[in-house]
Amino acid sequence: MQSIKVKSPATLSNLCCGFDILGMALQAPYDEIELIKKEEPGIVITHTDNYGLPLDPLQNISGVALQALMKAADYKNGFEIIIEKKIKPGSGVGSSAASAAGVVVAANELLGKPFDKKQLVEFAMEGELLASGSRHADNLAPCIYGGLVLIRDTQTLDIIELKTPPLFITIIHPQIEIKTSYARSILPKEIPLKSAVVQWANVAGLIAGFQNCDYGLISRSLTDVIVEPVRSKLIPGFDEVKKRSLAAGAMGGGISGSGPSLFMMSESHSTAIQVEKEMSTVYDQLGIEYKTYVTEVASKGVEVIK
Amino acid sequence: MQSIKVKSPATLSNLCCGFDILGMALQAPYDEIELIKKEEPGIVITHTDNYGLPLDPLQNISGVALQALMKAADYKNGFEIIIEKKIKPGSGVGSSAASAAGVVVAANELLGKPFDKKQLVEFAMEGELLASGSRHADNLAPCIYGGLVLIRDTQTLDIIELKTPPLFITIIHPQIEIKTSYARSILPKEIPLKSAVVQWANVAGLIAGFQNCDYGLISRSLTDVIVEPVRSKLIPGFDEVKKRSLAAGAMGGGISGSGPSLFMMSESHSTAIQVEKEMSTVYDQLGIEYKTYVTEVASKGVEVIK
Repeated sequence: MQSIKVKSPATLSNLCCGFDILGMALQAPYDEIELIKKEEPGIVITHTDNYGLPLDPLQNISGVALQALMKAADYKNGFEIIIEKKIKPGSGVGSSAASAAGVVVAANELLGKPFDKKQLVEFAMEGELLASGSRHADNLAPCIYGGLVLIRDTQTLDIIELKTPPLFITIIHPQIEIKTSYARSILPKEIPLKSAVVQWANVAGLIAGFQNCDYGLISRSLTDVIVEPVRSKLIPGFDEVKKRSLAAGAMGGGISGSGPSLFMMSESHSTAIQVEKEMSTVYDQLGIEYKTYVTEVASKGVEVIK
Repeated sequence: MQSIKVKSPATLSNLCCGFDILGMALQAPYDEIELIKKEEPGIVITHTDNYGLPLDPLQNISGVALQALMKAADYKNGFEIIIEKKIKPGSGVGSSAASAAGVVVAANELLGKPFDKKQLVEFAMEGELLASGSRHADNLAPCIYGGLVLIRDTQTLDIIELKTPPLFITIIHPQIEIKTSYARSILPKEIPLKSAVVQWANVAGLIAGFQNCDYGLISRSLTDVIVEPVRSKLIPGFDEVKKRSLAAGAMGGGISGSGPSLFMMSESHSTAIQVEKEMSTVYDQLGIEYKTYVTEVASKGVEVIK
C-alpha cells in the first residue's frame, strides 16, 4: 500500500468535572488526512484548507508526530501529507489532536501496523507538546481509541475505554480566540479541599452514569466547581447559553476543552436541535459569529476512508 | 410485631482516593441491635457490651437517630434498645454508623416500613452528627444500602449503588486512638490542583474498575495522594503494612475511614489470609495490640435476624 486516507475526529475533553482526565470522540467535525509513501527521505506537507498552518515538518503538529513514529519504526524513506482540516484550529474541540492522531494512525496502517494504539498516542503526544507545551492525552486518546476515554495516568498512559449510552451533542464555536496556554495560566494553583471533594464526587457520578446508562446521574454529575467558574468568564454568553440549553432539556454541558467552544449533551436528537437554536439565539444577540454542530459520540477513532 | 433484632455491619469509608464520597459494607464485624416497642413514651437503652457508651438517649447515637425517626413518624409510644456492639467504637470501620443505622432500620420494620432507605440515612445522620460533629453518610449509606455506595452529594443525599466484583478485605485494627475530629483537623484546607486531578483520575479509575470487574484497574486506582500522606503519619507501622501487603499480593488499600484501622483488598481468600499474617507481623514487632478481620463485601446492609 502506497497511500491511505483517514478521517480524524474532533474530540471533547474535560466533560465538566473530568478536567484533564476525560475525552470523547465526536462523529463531526473531522479532518481528512492523506498520507503517501515516497522514496526520498523527509516529510512534505500540503494543506488544502485555508488556515495557514505551518508547512515545515518541525513546526507542524502532524509533521512532529509523524517524525516520532518514523524514528521508532526506523523508517528511512519519506511521506507526503495532504491535510484538509475541517476542525478549525483553536476551537477547543481537539483540532491539533486530530492532526497528530490522524497522521500516526495513517502511517501505522501504511507500515503494516507495527504499533498499538497506546504507542500511537505516545507519538501523537509529541505533536500535541508542540501545540500546547504540555503532555496531554485527553483529546488524543479518544481521537485514536474512539468513544469515551479516561486517561487515569498521563505518565504511564493508563487509558481506559468507557461505555456511553446514546447521546446527542450540540456544540457551538463562537468565533473568538482563547489560547490554551492562557486558559491554563488563569487556573488556580491551589483549590479548597472541599471543592475538590465535590468535584471528585461528580467525576465518580459521571463515570457510574456513563457505565450504567443512567441519564439522570450523568445530568446531575455534569458539574464543574473548579475550572468552569474561572474559564467561563473568558466566553461571552456562557451563562445564558447554559441557562437556555438546560431549560430546553439538555442534560448538561459546559466548556469544550479550554474553549471557546461550548457543548451540551442531550438524550434526544430533537432536544439537541432545540439546544442548537437556543445557543444560536444567544450569539445572534451578542453579534458574535459562530458555527454549530449537532453530533453524536463516535464509537471509532481515526478511520481509514480510502 | 413487638420486637425485632437486626445485625448492622461495619463499613469501610473513603477507599483511598474516594475521600468523603465512597463507602462499602462488610460481612464482618457487625453489631446486634434489638428493638422492642413499649407503651410508655421515651427510649430506654441497654448495652450488653463493655464499651461504656452513654445510655442517655440524647447522648447516645442510636437514641438520637431513633428520636429523629420517631418524630417523623409521629410515634408517641416508646422503644427499648438493646445493643451488643461487636464493632469497637473508634476503630474506623463505622462503629457509630452501625449503631445509628441499625436502630432506624429496625424501627422502620417495626412501624410497617413508612420510610425509604434514603430517609433512614437522613435519620441516622442525626446520630452521626452527634458522633462526629459533621453531616457524613459515607459509612451510613453503605450500612443501610449494602454493597459499595457513592454519595455524590451529601446535601441532597444523592446515593448511588455501585457494583463490585468478589473481593476479600483484610482489616487490622491497631489498638491506638485517633479522634475523627482530630484526623479531620490536620487535613490541608487547600490542595494543589495538580494533586486534585491525580485524585479524581484515580476516583474515575476506581469506579470504572468496580463497575467493570477490572481488578487490575481497581488495584492501580487504589491510591490517595491527598489524605493518606497526612493521616498515615498518625498510624505507626502504616508504610510497612502497606509494603508487605502489596508484596503478598494485595490489590491495594490504605486507611479505613479516619483510622486507625487499615484495610487491604485482595482477589483471593488465600491472599487476604497472607495479608493478615503480614499485617500481624508488623504490629507484633511494634508491640502494639491489634485485632484483625478477613471479610468480604456485604451485598445487603442492615439485616433482620429475628
